Amino acid sequence: MAEVDRYQRGLDIIKKYSLEGNDEISSVQQLREAYRSLAPDLEDLIVSFGFGDIYSREGLTDKERTIATLSGLTTLGTEPQLELHINNGLNIGLTPKQVVGAIVHMLPYAGFPRVLNALGVVKQVFAQRNVTIND
Amino acid sequence: MAEVDRYQRGLDIIKKYSLEGNDEISSVQQLREAYRSLAPDLEDLIVSFGFGDIYSREGLTDKERTIATLSGLTTLGTEPQLELHINNGLNIGLTPKQVVGAIVHMLPYAGFPRVLNALGVVKQVFAQRNVTIND
Amino acid sequence: MAEVDRYQRGLDIIKKYSLEGNDEISSVQQLREAYRSLAPDLEDLIVSFGFGDIYSREGLTDKERTIATLSGLTTLGTEPQLELHINNGLNIGLTPKQVVGAIVHMLPYAGFPRVLNALGVVKQVFAQRNVTIND
Amino acid sequence: MAEVDRYQRGLDIIKKYSLEGNDEISSVQQLREAYRSLAPDLEDLIVSFGFGDIYSREGLTDKERTIATLSGLTTLGTEPQLELHINNGLNIGLTPKQVVGAIVHMLPYAGFPRVLNALGVVKQVFAQRNVTIND
Amino acid sequence: MAEVDRYQRGLDIIKKYSLEGNDEISSVQQLREAYRSLAPDLEDLIVSFGFGDIYSREGLTDKERTIATLSGLTTLGTEPQLELHINNGLNIGLTPKQVVGAIVHMLPYAGFPRVLNALGVVKQVFAQRNVTIND
Amino acid sequence: MAEVDRYQRGLDIIKKYSLEGNDEISSVQQLREAYRSLAPDLEDLIVSFGFGDIYSREGLTDKERTIATLSGLTTLGTEPQLELHINNGLNIGLTPKQVVGAIVHMLPYAGFPRVLNALGVVKQVFAQRNVTIND
Repeated sequence: MAEVDRYQRGLDIIKKYSLEGNDEISSVQQLREAYRSLAPDLEDLIVSFGFGDIYSREGLTDKERTIATLSGLTTLGTEPQLELHINNGLNIGLTPKQVVGAIVHMLPYAGFPRVLNALGVVKQVFAQRNVTIND
Repeated sequence: MAEVDRYQRGLDIIKKYSLEGNDEISSVQQLREAYRSLAPDLEDLIVSFGFGDIYSREGLTDKERTIATLSGLTTLGTEPQLELHINNGLNIGLTPKQVVGAIVHMLPYAGFPRVLNALGVVKQVFAQRNVTIND
Repeated sequence: MAEVDRYQRGLDIIKKYSLEGNDEISSVQQLREAYRSLAPDLEDLIVSFGFGDIYSREGLTDKERTIATLSGLTTLGTEPQLELHINNGLNIGLTPKQVVGAIVHMLPYAGFPRVLNALGVVKQVFAQRNVTIND
Repeated sequence: MAEVDRYQRGLDIIKKYSLEGNDEISSVQQLREAYRSLAPDLEDLIVSFGFGDIYSREGLTDKERTIATLSGLTTLGTEPQLELHINNGLNIGLTPKQVVGAIVHMLPYAGFPRVLNALGVVKQVFAQRNVTIND
Repeated sequence: MAEVDRYQRGLDIIKKYSLEGNDEISSVQQLREAYRSLAPDLEDLIVSFGFGDIYSREGLTDKERTIATLSGLTTLGTEPQLELHINNGLNIGLTPKQVVGAIVHMLPYAGFPRVLNALGVVKQVFAQRNVTIND
Repeated sequence: MAEVDRYQRGLDIIKKYSLEGNDEISSVQQLREAYRSLAPDLEDLIVSFGFGDIYSREGLTDKERTIATLSGLTTLGTEPQLELHINNGLNIGLTPKQVVGAIVHMLPYAGFPRVLNALGVVKQVFAQRNVTIND
C-alpha cells in the first residue's frame, strides 16, 4: 500500500475520533502541530503508524480500542495523552461510566496512585465537557 | 454488605472466568493457594477485593474488562499475570484476535519490547490450548 | 467480618495518621471526596481496602509502614501521593530525617531522578509545616 | 574521607548484612564478582556507593533500611535483587512477617502483579532457608 | 513514498546491523517469524516502522543509535530485546567497552538493579561471541 | 583515590557540561543547592558519584554519554532531569538534531507518550536558548 494511503487512513480515523461538526482542529492535530518544528516526520509517524497502522487493525471495535488505550495510559501514568484519549473515547461514544470503568479497573494491576491521578484528568475533561458520570 | 458476600461474589466471578466443566482447580485458585503459607489474608484480598469489588463494578462488560486487563498488564510487563488473564479472556469468550488485538494495540503506548514479550506469553497459551488466531 | 467493620477500621487508621486536634477534614478525606462524583465506591475502596485491610496487617509498625510507603511511592514517581504520605509520616511521628532517609535510600534502586523529584515534594511539605531536617 | 574508607565501610556493612559464621562468600560478593570481567569499577561502585555511602546514612535503622529496600524493589519488579535483599533482611534480624509485610504493603501502591511476583521470590528464599512465616 | 520502500529500507537496515556473511537468518528475522502466526502485520510493523522509519532518521549515527537503544532498554528492563541489540551493537562495530558503557551509564538514572540485570545479558552475549571487554 | 579527587573530578565534569563564560551558577549547581537543606550529603553524592564516578568512565565520548542520558530519561519519563540534560547536551556540542534524535529514537522502545512529553521539554529549552532544529 502506498504511503499516502496509510496517512489518509490515519487522518480518517483521527476524524472519526474527533467531535462531529468541530470546526476547530482536533486535539490530535494540535498535538501533531506542536512537534512539527522539532521533527517534521513526527506528524507522519503519529498519523500513519499510530492511527493508520494500529487503529485500523482487526480484532477490536473502536470502543474496545479506546478502553485498551485508557487502561494502558493509566498504567503508564502519562497524563497529557490520557486527556486526549478520554476526549477521543467520549467522542466515539464511550459512556462516562465506561471511561471511568477502564481506569478504575486498573486498581489491582497498577495500584491506587496511578488510578487516582488518571481520575484527576477525567475530572478535568468531564468538567470541560459538562459531562457527569450518569450521562 | 457482609464480608462473606464480597468473598462469595468474588468466587462466583472467578468461576465465570474459569473453564466450564473444569474439574481441576482454576489457575486463580492455584495462584491463591501458592501464597497461603506466606500471607493467609492474601486469598481474601485477591478474591474479595480483586474480583469481588473490582470485577463487579458497573461500566464495562466482562469482555471489555479483560481487554482492559490485558492492555494494562502488557504495559506493566508482568508475564505470569498475563498468562492467567489471557486464559481468563479465552474462557469468557474473547476471540484469539481480540486477545492479540488488546496487546498489539499497546504498540504506540508501551513500545515494541513490552508487546513482543506479551505476545510470547500469548503464543505459549495458544499452543497449550491448541488455539490459532483464526479460531 | 462485616463491611462496616472494615470501613470503620479504615477510618480509625486514617484518623491515627491525621494531625491530632485537626478540625479540618484530613488530606485523605479530601482525596476521597475529590473522586466521589466519578466513582462513589472509590471512597470505600480507599478506606476499607487501602487502610482497613492493608494498614491493619500484622508485621510492620505504623512507622515502618510509612517508611515502606514512601520508598514505594518514590520508586513509582507519583508525587501527589508522596505529598499525602510525607504528611502522614510526620503526623505519626516519623522524624524529618526518617522521611528523607526512606526516600534517599532509594538512590541505588530507583536512581537520582526519582529521588530528587520526591525530595522536591518533601521540601514543599516541610516548608508548609515549618519543619527542618533537624526537628 | 579517603576512598579506602568508603570501600572499607561498605564492606563492613555488607558483612553485617551477611550470615554470621558464613564461610562461603556472601551473595553480595557473588554478585560483585559476577560483573568484574565486564566493568572492574562496578565492584567499587556497589561497595563504596551502594553500601558505603547509602547504607551508612543517618535516619533509618538497619531494619528500616531493608524494609525500604524491599518495598522499593517490589515496586521496581527486579527479582534477582529482591532475592539478595530478602536474604539480607533475614540476616539482619527482620522476622519473616516483616519481610512479607514490607512486600504486601505495596498492594495499594504497586498493585497485585508486582506483589505476587515478589512473594514468589520470598517463597523460594524461605524454602532455601527452611523459614516459615511464623518463625 | 510507497510502502515497499519503507519495508525494503527497513530490511536493508536490519541487514546492516546483522553479522556480515551470516548465512543464518538474523536474530531480527527470527523474532519477526516468531510472531507471524499471531499477527501477520507485526513483521511489517517491525521492519517498516521500527527500522524503515526510525532507524533511517537523521541526527544520529548508527553507533549512536545503538547506544541510545541500549540505554533505553536498560531503563525499560526488557532483557530479550537487550540481547538482540547488544548483538546488533557489536555487529555494527560498537566496542565491548561502548556496549558496557551505555548500560553502566544508566546507574544514576535507572539504578543498580536494572543495570546489573542488563549486564547479566551482556555477559551471556559476550560468552556466546567469545568477546571480552578488552576486544 | 581520595574523596576530594572524586568531588573535584565531578565538579570539573559539571563545568565542562555548563555554558562557557556563564557567570551564573549552572543548572546542576542550582539543583545541588536545592536539596542542601534536606540532605547535606546529596551534593557530594551527585557531584562525586553521578559525575565524578560515572561521567568519568571510559567507553563513551561526552556526546555519546549525553545521548545515552537523554534516551534513558525519556524512557524513565522524568522531565526536570530531561531539561537539565538537554541543556548539558547543547552545552557540550550536541546539535539540536542529535538531541531530538536521541529522544525520537525511543519511539519503538518507550512508546509515543514518553517521547512526546520529552519533546515538550525540548521545545521549551530550544525556545529559551533561541535554538532551532536546523542550528
